[in-house]
Amino acid sequence: MKTYRIGICGYGNLGRGVELALRQQPDMSLAAVFTRRDPASLSILTPNVPVLPLSDAPAHAKDIDVLILCGGSATDLPEQGPALARHFNTVDSFDTHAHIPDYFAALDAAAKEARHLSLLSVGWDPGLFSLLRLYAGAVLPDGRDYTFWGRGVSQGHSDAIRRVPGVADARQYTVPVPAAVEAVRRGENPDLATREKHTRECYVVLKPGADPAAVEKAIVEMPNYFADYDTTVHFVSQEELDRDHAGLPHGGFVLRSGATGENAEHKQLIEFALKLDSNPEFTASVLVAYARAVAKLAAEGQTGARSVFDVPPAYLSPRTGAELRRTLL
Amino acid sequence: MKTYRIGICGYGNLGRGVELALRQQPDMSLAAVFTRRDPASLSILTPNVPVLPLSDAPAHAKDIDVLILCGGSATDLPEQGPALARHFNTVDSFDTHAHIPDYFAALDAAAKEARHLSLLSVGWDPGLFSLLRLYAGAVLPDGRDYTFWGRGVSQGHSDAIRRVPGVADARQYTVPVPAAVEAVRRGENPDLATREKHTRECYVVLKPGADPAAVEKAIVEMPNYFADYDTTVHFVSQEELDRDHAGLPHGGFVLRSGATGENAEHKQLIEFALKLDSNPEFTASVLVAYARAVAKLAAEGQTGARSVFDVPPAYLSPRTGAELRRTLL
Repeated sequence: MKTYRIGICGYGNLGRGVELALRQQPDMSLAAVFTRRDPASLSILTPNVPVLPLSDAPAHAKDIDVLILCGGSATDLPEQGPALARHFNTVDSFDTHAHIPDYFAALDAAAKEARHLSLLSVGWDPGLFSLLRLYAGAVLPDGRDYTFWGRGVSQGHSDAIRRVPGVADARQYTVPVPAAVEAVRRGENPDLATREKHTRECYVVLKPGADPAAVEKAIVEMPNYFADYDTTVHFVSQEELDRDHAGLPHGGFVLRSGATGENAEHKQLIEFALKLDSNPEFTASVLVAYARAVAKLAAEGQTGARSVFDVPPAYLSPRTGAELRRTLL
Repeated sequence: MKTYRIGICGYGNLGRGVELALRQQPDMSLAAVFTRRDPASLSILTPNVPVLPLSDAPAHAKDIDVLILCGGSATDLPEQGPALARHFNTVDSFDTHAHIPDYFAALDAAAKEARHLSLLSVGWDPGLFSLLRLYAGAVLPDGRDYTFWGRGVSQGHSDAIRRVPGVADARQYTVPVPAAVEAVRRGENPDLATREKHTRECYVVLKPGADPAAVEKAIVEMPNYFADYDTTVHFVSQEELDRDHAGLPHGGFVLRSGATGENAEHKQLIEFALKLDSNPEFTASVLVAYARAVAKLAAEGQTGARSVFDVPPAYLSPRTGAELRRTLL
């Protein structure tokens, strides 16, 4: 079995998750970690793997089959994706839905010119949830999609709370509304306002002397993040936050409720659900499986940008087509 | 938008489901129905579509982009699949798991020689459930798969009961054991015997004078079909059976429970569920979406046999790659 040599660019929660996920795969090895920090300051788990400055990455292109980009979507990936696609086959988890078309175009141009392959927006949403929306919509054209997220920690919303004056630390959970999920499962195809789909639970540590009422008001009225939701704020101590809210669980549901028959008399429900103890480790596991696919597709000569929609499922697996048909079909 | 011309081979529940599913697709039309019965005896739903003897099918090959084979796996498809792959691109729902490798080989040889493309074992299991097993296993290599079927009507088991002396009619439901599903959802990775995963509920109409005790014993002790399960037998009138058990609902769950992290400390659960009012109409809907993919792949010059594992998801949709990335990714 061929061993694919994988590089990691960026060693935060996601990069470390990639390192862990590679250990579970029979045909992949970690070749190098690239970082913008001082490499000497990083302590990685895998022995005898070089930690190198990101600026040196191009010099190591020959040693790496696929580079997994573990930076953020706001500022890292828009710059790093196209720049690194000039030197590597890449996979990333770009998740700013509204900017996907522009990012795809930039990545496609860079990768095509360098004859590399770049897969964008891999993870669970975008990623596995997107795949389910595509499969379910193609199979049941007469129907409606619903995506619910949670119960899980939203890092963006937690960060937004931490920027409120008087807040020392915070953790925010996105919670699907059970009655809404059940209405969809019953095939009622409800019209759901933002407020009816999810609630937001905030665990907040105040700075000494901060006014709880003012902090709560600033949170629940914050536009974009909280104003459109029913939000509850719980004030806790730093010890409680560290003890009870240190994890990064997440998950959610994609449902498609459709109808078939001469008079649309038969309800058909497709549901996909994730329940994740660790969001970054699961996202990393998806990235790693798709890195295998990128290595195989690149070896066949494919170049340019791709999404999960373009990747034949068999390419994710280390098994042969015959094995897959015999064991999983 | 190109319109794909689709043929149906075999007009039972599944063939009729394909006819209905084609009506929901914007870019597909029914070109012909082929049957082994007297064509004049068939009353199809779509006006101005020819119903033709199956033996005439090869003469109409030029009018059909993809032929959907709606025969049974026991005797129809092993013969019809390779024979029709010599004249058409085909899709079928071959579902005898143990014989998939042999059937694939026969189909592949016939399709390659004729430069056609044939996609086998499309539906929900095999089909969408197989895809989920593949994606989930590639993403969570350290984990276990569970597939549960039901609550739904098993036509094979219903037929087996109808062959018992003294039985006039019957309907059998396969029912997943809730405690087993819940144990899997909790991440317990239980070892489950056949009896612990599913129960079987039978609704049976006796012939006049038949002995209920003898019929019940013959059912619950029937090897392969019932002996390994906890089976309940309910005797009902033909009127009750026709009134309460006329539908063909089905569904089920694929779950993969895995672990990630330095010491496998994070449980990760992937669940896919179907709840179907009409099993044949849903299976037909999957066949039709994959017929579109076959038409596109064949137009690109692909030949031979394929499974759902080989088909890039985007090929199932009528939308362009850019539209899919903008709306579903």
